[in-house]
Amino acid sequence: VAKNGPVRVALMGAGVVGGGVARILTEKRAVYEQQLGRPLLLSHALVRDPSKPRAPYVADLITTDPDAILSDPDVDIVVEVIGGEEPALRYITQALKAGKHVVTANKEVMAKHSQHLLSLARDRGVDILYEASVGGGIPIIAPLKRDLLANEIESISAIINGTTNYILTAMSREGADFANALKQAQELGYAEANPANDVEGEDARFKLAILASLSFRCQVRPEDIYREGITRLSARDFRYASELGYAIKLLALAKQVEGGVQARVHPALLPQDAPLAKVDGVLNAVQVEADLTGLVLFSGPGAGSFPTTSAVIADVLDAAQSVIGGRREIHGETKRPTSIVPVGSWLTRFYIRLTVPDRPGVLAQITRVLGDAQISISSIIQKETDLDAKTAELVIMTHEAPEASMQSALEELDKLDVVQEIGNFIRVEG
Amino acid sequence: VAKNGPVRVALMGAGVVGGGVARILTEKRAVYEQQLGRPLLLSHALVRDPSKPRAPYVADLITTDPDAILSDPDVDIVVEVIGGEEPALRYITQALKAGKHVVTANKEVMAKHSQHLLSLARDRGVDILYEASVGGGIPIIAPLKRDLLANEIESISAIINGTTNYILTAMSREGADFANALKQAQELGYAEANPANDVEGEDARFKLAILASLSFRCQVRPEDIYREGITRLSARDFRYASELGYAIKLLALAKQVEGGVQARVHPALLPQDAPLAKVDGVLNAVQVEADLTGLVLFSGPGAGSFPTTSAVIADVLDAAQSVIGGRREIHGETKRPTSIVPVGSWLTRFYIRLTVPDRPGVLAQITRVLGDAQISISSIIQKETDLDAKTAELVIMTHEAPEASMQSALEELDKLDVVQEIGNFIRVEG
Repeated sequence: VAKNGPVRVALMGAGVVGGGVARILTEKRAVYEQQLGRPLLLSHALVRDPSKPRAPYVADLITTDPDAILSDPDVDIVVEVIGGEEPALRYITQALKAGKHVVTANKEVMAKHSQHLLSLARDRGVDILYEASVGGGIPIIAPLKRDLLANEIESISAIINGTTNYILTAMSREGADFANALKQAQELGYAEANPANDVEGEDARFKLAILASLSFRCQVRPEDIYREGITRLSARDFRYASELGYAIKLLALAKQVEGGVQARVHPALLPQDAPLAKVDGVLNAVQVEADLTGLVLFSGPGAGSFPTTSAVIADVLDAAQSVIGGRREIHGETKRPTSIVPVGSWLTRFYIRLTVPDRPGVLAQITRVLGDAQISISSIIQKETDLDAKTAELVIMTHEAPEASMQSALEELDKLDVVQEIGNFIRVEG
Repeated sequence: VAKNGPVRVALMGAGVVGGGVARILTEKRAVYEQQLGRPLLLSHALVRDPSKPRAPYVADLITTDPDAILSDPDVDIVVEVIGGEEPALRYITQALKAGKHVVTANKEVMAKHSQHLLSLARDRGVDILYEASVGGGIPIIAPLKRDLLANEIESISAIINGTTNYILTAMSREGADFANALKQAQELGYAEANPANDVEGEDARFKLAILASLSFRCQVRPEDIYREGITRLSARDFRYASELGYAIKLLALAKQVEGGVQARVHPALLPQDAPLAKVDGVLNAVQVEADLTGLVLFSGPGAGSFPTTSAVIADVLDAAQSVIGGRREIHGETKRPTSIVPVGSWLTRFYIRLTVPDRPGVLAQITRVLGDAQISISSIIQKETDLDAKTAELVIMTHEAPEASMQSALEELDKLDVVQEIGNFIRVEG
């Protein structure tokens, strides 16, 4: 398998990340050649539109024909930075089948197809590496694969979407409402014109599927992950949470519990002194709880072309070592049967915000509903009495209760005459 | 180089970490065998005192003769968890010369001899791995070697001594003075009976030497690193720092600057919202600033037998892959000439605490001395006036100034009649 001469790398996609990879591979060519003992040469750059102006690093390598790469036996490593499910998945599959190592930044493909692609790669004796698919430049995939290998991973808690974390940080600091914070994020380029993929938690779900599948050595698919976005959070939730000593974050959480894996993406109240509560703005952080090493936190810029480029190139250098010295395989992908526990069985605490008439007897009715559902209350605070409307806002914090009990209690509360509105309910973690 | 049959691992040292390694290797034998495709067998456990009671995992493997390991051609990997410079260095050297891979948790040996041992290992075609020498179970050595390989590392800022961080956290939270906080740490087992190695910054210096040598690809020796311990910090420094918006930490800092490398371990004021300022108690954290990936932070438990065991075993599994599939080498150790910039050329801000008479004209004399040294002041706050003694305490925060100017200004201040005492001076970072 070992070979002499240069290691050839083909780019599929020459957008911001692809251009960055080409630039760094060119500018640091001498350094990488010294590190590897062989030159690392960029051989192709696949694009859809050849008429677009390109950086000088890729201009001479442009092709619009994927087969120019996939059928070229001299190409050792394919770097897929096209994004989206197709045609990226098809190209990656063909590259692996052709015995090429693949480096990808594609969270959607890896979230949906990692088990299949990893086993295809193993069969063909090549690597598929995907450090850049989660957490930008934060090393997280490789540490999970290598450094924490001696451990049984118990849980992953993460803030892995910079757009929503930017919005939530602005809502928290400035008292902004969701729409204004989103607009600000869009103006600064932190949110897309169509932000649904981020604010509805879909992006975080892809990334959590990748982390959970790797950590628990089973297949956690995006659709196995409960998902709730940040659009129904209001400025007053942040105010009350802060008074109670909590931050609100879009939490991506996967843990091993009795009976299987629990995986979810939703807004959560976190105690202000929890490490993840302090991760602000566009930063990302992944907290891993493992049997031997305890709680370890990785944080840094979760997106951006340079950090992502850094992750892609680390993988390219790793793949190049496999090309040169032969592949080293740890059978970390050992499949376990996946069992996703039902949502109703989750145990969490809850924050509930209700609008009620400001008169005697109201609390008795509400606490009775919760009591009947076996949900015990840790605190009730009356907030923001509206003297004209004679209404008050109640914030209830509960002890741990099964999700199913909580959902039926919320239905019951909604039926009560004295409950004018269930303003919000947010799970509490940590 | 590849071999069939079991991979044999010999332990040198069977104390807390060695016992933990033996236990995990035994308990997780089936898992590791599946991951590696070969059994991983513990073959020896070198101890000094064979009469001590040992865990069942090592009891049958005890030897007091290092040559039983070093001369046994069947031993593939030597795990050195003796600690201290000798005889550990001698054993490691002999093991490498005998063509064995070495995994070590020894910060002193690696701080002083990493360049020599890495080049010896390279010559013999084996690995020397040392993840456990810094930061306990936090993956930091491997990410620096692999994941950040595409980057030029610009600086490393770290809290890498849990004992001192525990003490400083107690001083900050409880207003305790150093002696009481130390006593508390000793009672809880976080500080040794003779705490000098920790509180004087020697342990942090070893670890910083390892991180800086790896990051900057040159040899930064412990004696190249300026060192100042935490013993002269007082409760009032924490009070004033907190009022000014700062935390006080024992900072280990190495950075590339014009003319070479600057490396130092000393107490520092850090802005309260800086990530390292929030690392409390026995936690460790390493912040890496790199050209592509930006600021990345790794944090977690920096010591303890389980986290250290986790790091050792990750390295053992890595070395086992080299035994089985052949070694893969990245020539990351490329030596660069080391040039340590002189202390006097550092540029930092300063916090200075002075006791002065509470009368007119005092400030003019003090500001003149600083002005003559070209040090500009960012704020002066008068604190804690003592009405009986007619004295006041001044806290001066400066702008950036060269260390040499600051040191001579401090000498001049000390000569002034109006300066009764220089209570403390602490560098300000971040």
